[in-house]
Amino acid sequence: MSTSHHFVLTAVPRGLPDSSLFALRQTPLPDLAQNEVRIRNRWLSVDPYMRGRMSGVTTYVEPYALDEPLAGGAIGEIIASRHPHFQVGDRVRHMAGWRDVAQLPGNDVEALPLHDVPEQAFLGVLGMPGMTAWTGLNRIAAMQSGDRVLVSAASGAVGSLAVQLAKRAGCHVVGVAGTPAKCEWLESLGVVAVNYKGKDVEALSASLKAASPEGYDIYYENVGGPLLEAALENLRDHARIAVCGLIDRYNDTDAGSGPGNLNQLLFHKARMEGFIVGEHWQHYLTFLDEVAPLVASGKIKYRESIVEGLEQTPEAFLSLFRGANEGKMLVKLDA
Amino acid sequence: MSTSHHFVLTAVPRGLPDSSLFALRQTPLPDLAQNEVRIRNRWLSVDPYMRGRMSGVTTYVEPYALDEPLAGGAIGEIIASRHPHFQVGDRVRHMAGWRDVAQLPGNDVEALPLHDVPEQAFLGVLGMPGMTAWTGLNRIAAMQSGDRVLVSAASGAVGSLAVQLAKRAGCHVVGVAGTPAKCEWLESLGVVAVNYKGKDVEALSASLKAASPEGYDIYYENVGGPLLEAALENLRDHARIAVCGLIDRYNDTDAGSGPGNLNQLLFHKARMEGFIVGEHWQHYLTFLDEVAPLVASGKIKYRESIVEGLEQTPEAFLSLFRGANEGKMLVKLDA
Repeated sequence: MSTSHHFVLTAVPRGLPDSSLFALRQTPLPDLAQNEVRIRNRWLSVDPYMRGRMSGVTTYVEPYALDEPLAGGAIGEIIASRHPHFQVGDRVRHMAGWRDVAQLPGNDVEALPLHDVPEQAFLGVLGMPGMTAWTGLNRIAAMQSGDRVLVSAASGAVGSLAVQLAKRAGCHVVGVAGTPAKCEWLESLGVVAVNYKGKDVEALSASLKAASPEGYDIYYENVGGPLLEAALENLRDHARIAVCGLIDRYNDTDAGSGPGNLNQLLFHKARMEGFIVGEHWQHYLTFLDEVAPLVASGKIKYRESIVEGLEQTPEAFLSLFRGANEGKMLVKLDA
Repeated sequence: MSTSHHFVLTAVPRGLPDSSLFALRQTPLPDLAQNEVRIRNRWLSVDPYMRGRMSGVTTYVEPYALDEPLAGGAIGEIIASRHPHFQVGDRVRHMAGWRDVAQLPGNDVEALPLHDVPEQAFLGVLGMPGMTAWTGLNRIAAMQSGDRVLVSAASGAVGSLAVQLAKRAGCHVVGVAGTPAKCEWLESLGVVAVNYKGKDVEALSASLKAASPEGYDIYYENVGGPLLEAALENLRDHARIAVCGLIDRYNDTDAGSGPGNLNQLLFHKARMEGFIVGEHWQHYLTFLDEVAPLVASGKIKYRESIVEGLEQTPEAFLSLFRGANEGKMLVKLDA
């Protein structure tokens, strides 16, 4: 195979992107250069952070260039190699997603870790989203046994590990999600579930209070918007808010306004901190040593929403903003 | 003298308090009990945080009770003592302000530290406001040489020490104030001054950028409102926002809205943290050892806005919200 099919973005979206902004292109692949590998992708990751890369400006990552292959996490199999560390048949993870066949320097590719889990777990619970959950709780929010922990988007790829890590650490855990089915799943994990749908700040705040009358030591923030405002109303002294994402605003076309109650940070001597998981990647093996055995043994659960076929990739991505996923959203390609 | 004249609050204010809400009362003082002292106050402190104590609800301090003597920092002279540590003539600091004569347990009173400065400095640059500046920069924002430091309310009691401490630490310092005279004074200290008056978020943001094109590592936040939003637009990676106060909102009657750009915390992996100086008071002597000699030798400047006479106390307090003070606002009583 010497052709790659890949998606490009044809224009900078305003607001929620339309699927028509994504175009599937085909390019011939040159012969492998020294130290390059060619990979047939089997799994593609779509993640909310990619919306930021579509905005044409640098946020914490470089923006995607228009009409260039989009990028993202992917797992595949080496089908040709001129790199000494990789052989045909090796399973690898890399960032040349949004395409069926990737060709890139072997140094930009990593062998899948040796753990007895399905390979696509390394894009989800044992990949960037899982590492994000672990980093936010442990390295940003300094989670301790007995903490009251609130997690937004709690049934998503990040949140669903966050709630389980917090439970295992001996915390009282409240998870917020948007459907009865998601809430039911959270309850099955021993998490107190709060459905945010149809609630304004006041109603949300009351629900959060009912779920943890003494408030929260930690808020794991994926969402922003009214939920952040309600969470601020329920802080305990010295609370820590780990800001992983603010998906509520990713598609807004203007800045709008934010929470009017930041004075709660002052009243409660609380801390709100943004973080990017890439800056903590030196701890990935620590994370893996801790979490992979729990996933392999089934002590930590994870769910996947899988769509099949490269052409479904834009739709899979866009569905994240409707909350259509339960757990990690993945695109499965024909092997 | 066996009578105390003191102010009380007669009703919970809505919005900016009216001076009619303050009433001057007179009470006879009982004979001194064992271990009590009687103090003729010479200096009374009025501070923005007192507004929070007038709201009838617990924020980070207990609210003032209506029709009870108001409290606040004060410096005076012992005029009677039944406490073994205090003798007539001793100069002391305590929290029974808003009155001319205080009577209280000697254990609630501290002798003035021995430094060659005017006694009222221990209510300002060497008192709670000074300690607040030092704590925010050093213990919350982890100030380091070379940091770009932005200070709001920079000519006020807290801000004016913050800018000087940051200068002495080898930082590039930008101070925000609201009058040409205040800005001129800041410039005389080597601070780049920005006048916020008449500027919306966009104009403020442009001014902050002009004053430090590479952005800010530290924002010392006393104000909130549009300035916070503009500061968020100018963060450097890993910036720290020490939230000391949000005076912009103290008199608002509803929560309103806040900054719409908290995503900057995420983009810049930045931290925003509220603090209350009382929780750091165990470091007061460290602060005093460092700062008092600099004040005594004139290497650190401070200014005072002094009004005379107990009856002026409410007006002195209210003037803080008009930015009428340059430096520490004090009420001087007849000795």
